[in-house]
Amino acid sequence: MKQFAVIGLGRFGSSVARTLSRMGYDVLAVDTSEDRVNDITDEVTYAVQVDAMDEQALKSLGVRNFDVVIVAIGHEVQSSILVTVMLKEMGVPRVVAKAQTELHGKVLQKVGADMVVFPERDMGVRLAHALVSRNILDQINLSPDFSIVELLAPPEFIGKTLQESAMRQEYGVTVLAVRRGHEVIISPGAKQVIQEGDVLVIVGRNDKLRSLSG
Amino acid sequence: MKQFAVIGLGRFGSSVARTLSRMGYDVLAVDTSEDRVNDITDEVTYAVQVDAMDEQALKSLGVRNFDVVIVAIGHEVQSSILVTVMLKEMGVPRVVAKAQTELHGKVLQKVGADMVVFPERDMGVRLAHALVSRNILDQINLSPDFSIVELLAPPEFIGKTLQESAMRQEYGVTVLAVRRGHEVIISPGAKQVIQEGDVLVIVGRNDKLRSLSG
Ligand SMILES: Nc1ncnc2c1ncn2[C@@H]1O[C@H](COP(=O)(O)OP(=O)(O)OP(=O)(O)O)[C@@H](O)[C@H]1O
Ligand SMILES: Nc1ncnc2c1ncn2[C@@H]1O[C@H](COP(=O)(O)OP(=O)(O)OP(=O)(O)O)[C@@H](O)[C@H]1O
Ligand SMILES: [Ca+2]
Ligand SMILES: [Ca+2]
Ligand SMILES: [Ca+2]
Ligand SMILES: [Ca+2]
Repeated sequence: MKQFAVIGLGRFGSSVARTLSRMGYDVLAVDTSEDRVNDITDEVTYAVQVDAMDEQALKSLGVRNFDVVIVAIGHEVQSSILVTVMLKEMGVPRVVAKAQTELHGKVLQKVGADMVVFPERDMGVRLAHALVSRNILDQINLSPDFSIVELLAPPEFIGKTLQESAMRQEYGVTVLAVRRGHEVIISPGAKQVIQEGDVLVIVGRNDKLRSLSG
Repeated sequence: MKQFAVIGLGRFGSSVARTLSRMGYDVLAVDTSEDRVNDITDEVTYAVQVDAMDEQALKSLGVRNFDVVIVAIGHEVQSSILVTVMLKEMGVPRVVAKAQTELHGKVLQKVGADMVVFPERDMGVRLAHALVSRNILDQINLSPDFSIVELLAPPEFIGKTLQESAMRQEYGVTVLAVRRGHEVIISPGAKQVIQEGDVLVIVGRNDKLRSLSG
C-alpha cells in the first residue's frame, strides 16, 4: 500500500489529503499553520505543524520513506521550489508540485518535480468548456480532433431510435453507450429509442460533436 | 453569441476568461488590481479595473446585459457573496460563483448563484485518483458502477491482439477505441494488435477496470 505525504493544506492540498485518506491510504499532512493542521487531523493518518523549509524536521518525520509527496504550497513560490529540491535530494521517488504560473511550473520541473499540476488553470479551462456547451457533461479528448463526450440527449432526438436520429449518417459519430438513470446500455442497437433525460456517450470528431451539442 | 464577464482575475478567473476568449467569445474581465487587469488586457475583449462591490460601476459597465457572469473572487468571501447578490438583482441570467469552503458554497447557492464551483477541491480529488491509478489518464463516470476510462495499455498486453488479451472474457470490459499517437482507431476489431504506448479507451464495471489498471 502506497504512502503519501501532503505539504501545504490549502483548499487543494487538503482535498488531495482527504481524498487519499478516504480511499484507505496512509497520509501524512504537513502545514505551518496550526489551524489548518487541527482542521484535518481527524481525517488523515498523521497531521503535524512543521515548516517544510526545515530540512531536519522533514527528515525526522521520515518523509524520505514516502512513495509520493505532494507539495501544495501556494503563494510562497520560493518555498515550494526549495521544498521540492529537498525532497528529491532526500530520495523521495515521486514529488508532485502545485504551480502558480507557467514560469513557476517550468522551474519546478527543472529542479526535479516528477509531476507539476496547475489546479486553478485546469479547472478554469474545464469551466469555460462547460459553460459554452451546457449539454456536454464530461469528455475525454482522444486527440486534437476526436473526443468522447457525455451529451444530454438533444430535444430533437427524443422519441426517435438511434437509427432515426441519423447521428451516424449526418454527423459521422457513434453512440457508445446510453445512460438512463442508474442503468447503462452499452453498445446500444440501432432500434434503441432515445428517451428524455438520456445521456448519450458519443465518440466522433470535435467539430461534429460541437454541432450536435450546439 | 453568448457574452461573458469574469469578476476576479486570480489563477482560476483568468484561466476562465482566457479560455472563453480563445474560443471566440466576448469577455469582460474585471479586477480591483491594476496589475491583474494589465496582465490580461491583450487577451480579452475588455479588461477594466473596478471594485465589483461598487454597484454603480458594475451597472455602468452594462454587466446586466451579459449572459453569464463568473464571480471568481477568492479570499474575500463576503465580497463574493455580496457581488453574487447584486448580479442576480440586476437580472443577470446566469451567475457562476467560486466557493472557498462548503459553507461558503451553501451561502452562494442560497443567495441565488446558478452554479457554484470548487476548483481546488475538485482538482484535489482528481489528482488523488490519478495518483493511485497511474495508468488511468482520464475517465467518465457513467454510473456508480460503470465508467469509461482511458488506460495506458498494460505491459502484459503489448504485442497481443485484443482477442488474445481476453479483456472481454476475463474482465467483461469492451475496448471502444485505441489512441495511437495522433491516430484514433474507433471500435477496433478483435485482430487489432496492442502496441507499446497505445492508450485504450475501455468501458466496463469500475471494479474490473480497477483490477485492469492495477
Ligand atoms: N514552508 C511551508 N511549510 C509547510 N506549509 C506551508 C509552507 N509554506 C506555506 N505553507 C502552507 O501551504 C498552504 C497553501 O498555501 P496558500 O494558501 O498560499 O496556497 P493557495 O494556492 O492559495 O492554496 P489553495 O488555492 O489550494 O487554497 C497554506 O496552508 C500554508 O500555510
Ligand atoms: N471586490 C472585488 N472586485 C473585483 N475584484 C476583486 C474583488 N475582490 C477581490 N477581487 C480579485 O479577485 C481575485 C481573486 O482573489 P484571490 O486571489 O483572493 O482568490 P484565490 O481563490 O486565491 O484565487 P486563485 O486560487 O484562483 O488564484 C484577485 O485578483 C482579487 O484582486
Ligand atoms: Ca489562493
Ligand atoms: Ca476529462
Ligand atoms: Ca487557489
Ligand atoms: Ca470525468
